[in-house]
Amino acid sequence: MKLRYGIIGAGAIGGYYGGRLAQHGADIHFLYHSEYEQVKNNGLRVDSVNGDFHLTDMNVYAHSEDMPKCDVVIVALKTTQSDKVASLVKPLLKEGSHILLVQNGLGYEEELAKELPDYYIGGGLAFICSSRIAPGHILHADYGALTVAWYKSKKNEDVANQIKTDFEQAEVPYTTGDDLNFFRWRKLVWNIPYNGLAVALMATTEEIMKNPSTRQLAADMMKEVVTAARACGAMIKDSFIDRMLENTEKMKPYAPSMRLDFDNHRPMEIQAIYSNPIQIAKAAGVEMPKVEMLEQQLRFIESREIANSGK
Amino acid sequence: MKLRYGIIGAGAIGGYYGGRLAQHGADIHFLYHSEYEQVKNNGLRVDSVNGDFHLTDMNVYAHSEDMPKCDVVIVALKTTQSDKVASLVKPLLKEGSHILLVQNGLGYEEELAKELPDYYIGGGLAFICSSRIAPGHILHADYGALTVAWYKSKKNEDVANQIKTDFEQAEVPYTTGDDLNFFRWRKLVWNIPYNGLAVALMATTEEIMKNPSTRQLAADMMKEVVTAARACGAMIKDSFIDRMLENTEKMKPYAPSMRLDFDNHRPMEIQAIYSNPIQIAKAAGVEMPKVEMLEQQLRFIESREIANSGK
Repeated sequence: MKLRYGIIGAGAIGGYYGGRLAQHGADIHFLYHSEYEQVKNNGLRVDSVNGDFHLTDMNVYAHSEDMPKCDVVIVALKTTQSDKVASLVKPLLKEGSHILLVQNGLGYEEELAKELPDYYIGGGLAFICSSRIAPGHILHADYGALTVAWYKSKKNEDVANQIKTDFEQAEVPYTTGDDLNFFRWRKLVWNIPYNGLAVALMATTEEIMKNPSTRQLAADMMKEVVTAARACGAMIKDSFIDRMLENTEKMKPYAPSMRLDFDNHRPMEIQAIYSNPIQIAKAAGVEMPKVEMLEQQLRFIESREIANSGK
Repeated sequence: MKLRYGIIGAGAIGGYYGGRLAQHGADIHFLYHSEYEQVKNNGLRVDSVNGDFHLTDMNVYAHSEDMPKCDVVIVALKTTQSDKVASLVKPLLKEGSHILLVQNGLGYEEELAKELPDYYIGGGLAFICSSRIAPGHILHADYGALTVAWYKSKKNEDVANQIKTDFEQAEVPYTTGDDLNFFRWRKLVWNIPYNGLAVALMATTEEIMKNPSTRQLAADMMKEVVTAARACGAMIKDSFIDRMLENTEKMKPYAPSMRLDFDNHRPMEIQAIYSNPIQIAKAAGVEMPKVEMLEQQLRFIESREIANSGK
């Protein structure tokens, strides 16, 4: 079975995964916005810990209306653009299309399922250090695994299996599971403390972990997330908290994606990583006070950034 | 009854109140540290919204061992120096001496009462905008009231009444009460949110109140403080929260004392305003998660400051 893929949002994440698939012969169609001319003329360069490559002669488009119907649409836009996803994806859809949201946060598959009830929708969790260092030029610095689960476990088995095969042939470590809710919450155990604290305290993961007060704060927030996750049916073990703390201590000093967004004056994914989980936890009867305080601080910082950029 | 006063810590607060008492003829003896030579030679200048004055020919000392025995010892050191208070005060004490701690935070009267069980100990709460703008030169910009209550209500009535008379003659609005614990907690309702957030977010009270997220955060923290206060026997009403929020909105943009300390690379009163209240609330069975998170962030900021200043 040969699948046709569309990539909506071919930035640091979508460009890397789409690029790997294209490099290994998959049928890939990329939507570009500001980088369109650059990539059309000069292709896509990826400097990767797993081997550099340079793609030319790619299928690139400036408008999703010009793209062909696809079996699989990979959406790797930031969640700050999630209000555009349905309209960007629609022109690519045909009967049986699978849409894979490779994004942070919580709640977007459910939202999109309401707008596009006739298609399969999945969540992709990228464990990757990747950044765009110039137009049409991505630096893949570390990791790279992708975990995929389908919303309400609905999928076409043959298509889902073929996606897995295609990624594996493209040398991407690819894990699947049934419980999207579990994977989304589990990723938040790391994302919630470190993304926001890296901005609120202007600190790296290393600085946060070296100070006993903020190490404890990270642990406290993880505990709040795990408690909320369980109330929402995601049965994460306590030992996962210790594992995340230890892994983070062993990591190289790392600026989480929200910190990169902040430093580069891009919108932060506050809604996806904080506001949605807080709201979903509240609906399940659980408060996350320290997580909520971080959200409140980030909203303040965000509004000051917007005010300053207007000067 | 003529009282003799000693002032330990004649900075923005102690210098103002001691200065007002001296201006109106009280018998006042000032301990100075770095400002000793300046004040000895040139006196104390106070620029005040209630009228400027310049004191010369003051009783100033460089060492508390050289000071006379006093009926009333007013301690207006920052709580970051509280480990020095007992030894600084001791040389001034005689039978029946009253020691008045004009300081922020919680727990210091109890601590001092353990060290000096034979004397009367009181807490003074200064509602004043006052700052030292140069050696021997204080700017009193706004407010000025002093509220005093005695630890476990123990006091000599005649002395306590005379102190009140002396302050009133010095044109300082002076309120008394029986419940020191209540006054200390009530002041924390304001001090806890604004002092720490002004540092953690590098914001003025006005900026905190104008943003709906941080206005809510300030209200959330006040609610935590009031809940803890009640568990500790200080029956603060809910309406006090609304009053504090409204008053703060009406205030001129204001940098709380912790922000001034931070900006001037002085130690912050984290122990007095955060750690002690958190610990006392916990002993009474109440958690203050957002207050605790602010403490954790401030400890991080403090340790980074110390590390940076060592460079």
